[in-house]
Amino acid sequence: MAERDDLLTPAAGNGLLHRRLFLTGGASLAGAGLTLLAPGATRAQPPAVPAWTTTPGPPPDAYGERSRFEEHVQRSAGSLPGAPGAGASRTPLEALEGIITPNALHFERHHNGVPDIDPAGHRLLIHGLVARPLIFDLDTLGRYPLVSAIRFIECSGNSGANNGPEPPQQTAGGLHGLVSCADWTGIPLGVLLDEAGLLPAARWIVAEGADAAAMSRSVPLGKALDDAVVALFQNGERLRPSNGYPMRLLLPGWEGNANVKWLRRIQVTAEPAMSKDETSKYSDLGTDGRASLFTLPMEVKSVITSPSGSMTMRGAGLYQISGLAWSGAGAIRRVEVSADGGASWAEAALTEPVLSKALARFRLPWRWDGGPAVLMSRAVDEAGAVQPTRAALLAARGPNYRYHYHAIQSWRVTGEGEVANVYV
Amino acid sequence: MAERDDLLTPAAGNGLLHRRLFLTGGASLAGAGLTLLAPGATRAQPPAVPAWTTTPGPPPDAYGERSRFEEHVQRSAGSLPGAPGAGASRTPLEALEGIITPNALHFERHHNGVPDIDPAGHRLLIHGLVARPLIFDLDTLGRYPLVSAIRFIECSGNSGANNGPEPPQQTAGGLHGLVSCADWTGIPLGVLLDEAGLLPAARWIVAEGADAAAMSRSVPLGKALDDAVVALFQNGERLRPSNGYPMRLLLPGWEGNANVKWLRRIQVTAEPAMSKDETSKYSDLGTDGRASLFTLPMEVKSVITSPSGSMTMRGAGLYQISGLAWSGAGAIRRVEVSADGGASWAEAALTEPVLSKALARFRLPWRWDGGPAVLMSRAVDEAGAVQPTRAALLAARGPNYRYHYHAIQSWRVTGEGEVANVYV
Repeated sequence: MAERDDLLTPAAGNGLLHRRLFLTGGASLAGAGLTLLAPGATRAQPPAVPAWTTTPGPPPDAYGERSRFEEHVQRSAGSLPGAPGAGASRTPLEALEGIITPNALHFERHHNGVPDIDPAGHRLLIHGLVARPLIFDLDTLGRYPLVSAIRFIECSGNSGANNGPEPPQQTAGGLHGLVSCADWTGIPLGVLLDEAGLLPAARWIVAEGADAAAMSRSVPLGKALDDAVVALFQNGERLRPSNGYPMRLLLPGWEGNANVKWLRRIQVTAEPAMSKDETSKYSDLGTDGRASLFTLPMEVKSVITSPSGSMTMRGAGLYQISGLAWSGAGAIRRVEVSADGGASWAEAALTEPVLSKALARFRLPWRWDGGPAVLMSRAVDEAGAVQPTRAALLAARGPNYRYHYHAIQSWRVTGEGEVANVYV
Repeated sequence: MAERDDLLTPAAGNGLLHRRLFLTGGASLAGAGLTLLAPGATRAQPPAVPAWTTTPGPPPDAYGERSRFEEHVQRSAGSLPGAPGAGASRTPLEALEGIITPNALHFERHHNGVPDIDPAGHRLLIHGLVARPLIFDLDTLGRYPLVSAIRFIECSGNSGANNGPEPPQQTAGGLHGLVSCADWTGIPLGVLLDEAGLLPAARWIVAEGADAAAMSRSVPLGKALDDAVVALFQNGERLRPSNGYPMRLLLPGWEGNANVKWLRRIQVTAEPAMSKDETSKYSDLGTDGRASLFTLPMEVKSVITSPSGSMTMRGAGLYQISGLAWSGAGAIRRVEVSADGGASWAEAALTEPVLSKALARFRLPWRWDGGPAVLMSRAVDEAGAVQPTRAALLAARGPNYRYHYHAIQSWRVTGEGEVANVYV
């Protein structure tokens, strides 16, 4: 009985329970007197045998599709002005679970559309401050040693709508879906740079894509030699065209656009290129009118995906709060959750594996009493960085800073169970 | 120089080098004098600008597809006698990298085809030796706490062709592709059993699918209360129909068919049901003519996926041996590789994360001298179990044992670079 009481003792205000309730498996739920969690469970006779049980289905096939009943799960795709094919699509975070994003739902951001690349005709050039300029075709690259890692990629413009004066009413994915996570495999960029032979003056690389935008970004050489990868595979299979087929730069933890897709050229340089993509875009304007360039690492961040914007709760009772946390600085150390708008916080359970520069899944039990609530999550990474409040972030950055919004997301739950974006 | 020599010192016979060469990244390759690993890399002028760079591509869309140049990567699907829709399709392991299997290429094994289930009409019944028989719809299940885990599923018939007297000439996937790995999310089965209230006589569960085969298996209650999950999500999205949409039983590390798909009924019993699927099938016939039943855990196993059957090496030089290892008993502790038919062994590098009951990726550098070689991999799991040779496995089991083939796979490399399945 002592254990039961302990499990039901609030861990923070407005119904948050201790994460232990979910960590210990089913026994603790029943032990805590929480049988019949879900009022919809009925005690009844066996259900009628449905038609799909009385009729054989189709046999195995070569390439599987999802159920026709799941086709509503889509990326929210939109075009952007400036160039044909420019735009973005966002991962529907609120419809997904776990930490892996299926490739068909990985977010996109294109500056001139998706090139239809024949891999047999694609080349990667490494030149500039190297002893031996080299051109690789895909077959040749296939001879190099591969490495794999589960890593997130996030667009630096993700969540930017929350910079606006009124909270945009969107789903979790609509607001924060420019982040996805996959098991990437490719060749360490350092191996290829060593093949070419770096000259002593080398300090930067300039990576350029084969798309019509010739998207290009400068990256400090230290990152290129640290954990940068020329990625060829995504969740087991070859990259999808929308993610850079047949090869992209992967810079774990650094802003998405620098993870140059359709990679065709790496120039080793002494200085950054000051390309259009790092001057007119992807720079951060400060309060003094000066822009910060090369703000590449992504900050510590989290979002509750369930319950989240546009959802409707279905009656008071026990719920699981579930969400994602990530940081470009390494692994997530801790996620705290509040149900009372930040007045009190309880530590969430992190689902293993909790990997460096990968999405981490957190969960916490919540006994919703049916009244108003404001749900928030606050992530802390292994470097000790703490996700800031919106007010603190905006105060520090001023009104013109567009990118790298990573403040705490607040979801208001009304007495009717409606969930909406709110600034607190 | 000492370090260079060390990296090039053979770690085992016939050209196997130390895994350190790949673990330390690019610097060690150049440091070891292994520049220009790949003879195909050319020193040349920048390549011509291809058509796909001069023309804008299509904008982002709601659901992504793979490149038209990758459509040859398919499961090898085949039908089996006995019932309409019965058959299997195998994951093309040799075409994939990392540890996650994309959902469209996850292996299948159906006994009466794939049912087209409307989730709104699907129910899960829990009855038998319980205090409260319960019926759940999908919405109600959605209220329960979720857990996630990256786990493999393997058909117990996987690799069975290697039981035959002559080595079948197949790809790695054609031989061993009835294994896949995904990030699964679902409800601990123990939570649902607690809801129903187990009676003291409960010892087994009988899980039944909603397919036309009404595929059903008995599972000891201990496993059901340990790590069994009613899985709803697979690599982030809802299960695919071929993997049990809208719900399947996940029994980490236990043979695939017991991970009952399209789960519609769990009966709690005192004894196993002796269903058709565990008597006429999925039992193991010993030398004395008696069948072993409920041989559910999958053994320690590995396979080199590159180079592998039906591939052709392209000239002497440095290669990366890459493969997969897994065990139903927990995490892989070690994988050893031989290039001389088992005369000597070198330890491969394991790619992080190395997870319990998940595929693990191993890699090892190999300097192929262009001569004949026999490549083998041997996995050891955290319980200390060592993958056996084919001869040892067959000697222990006798000629009629069909399932759970998990012996060391040997690939013969000829002087012409042809790779083929071989018994040694």
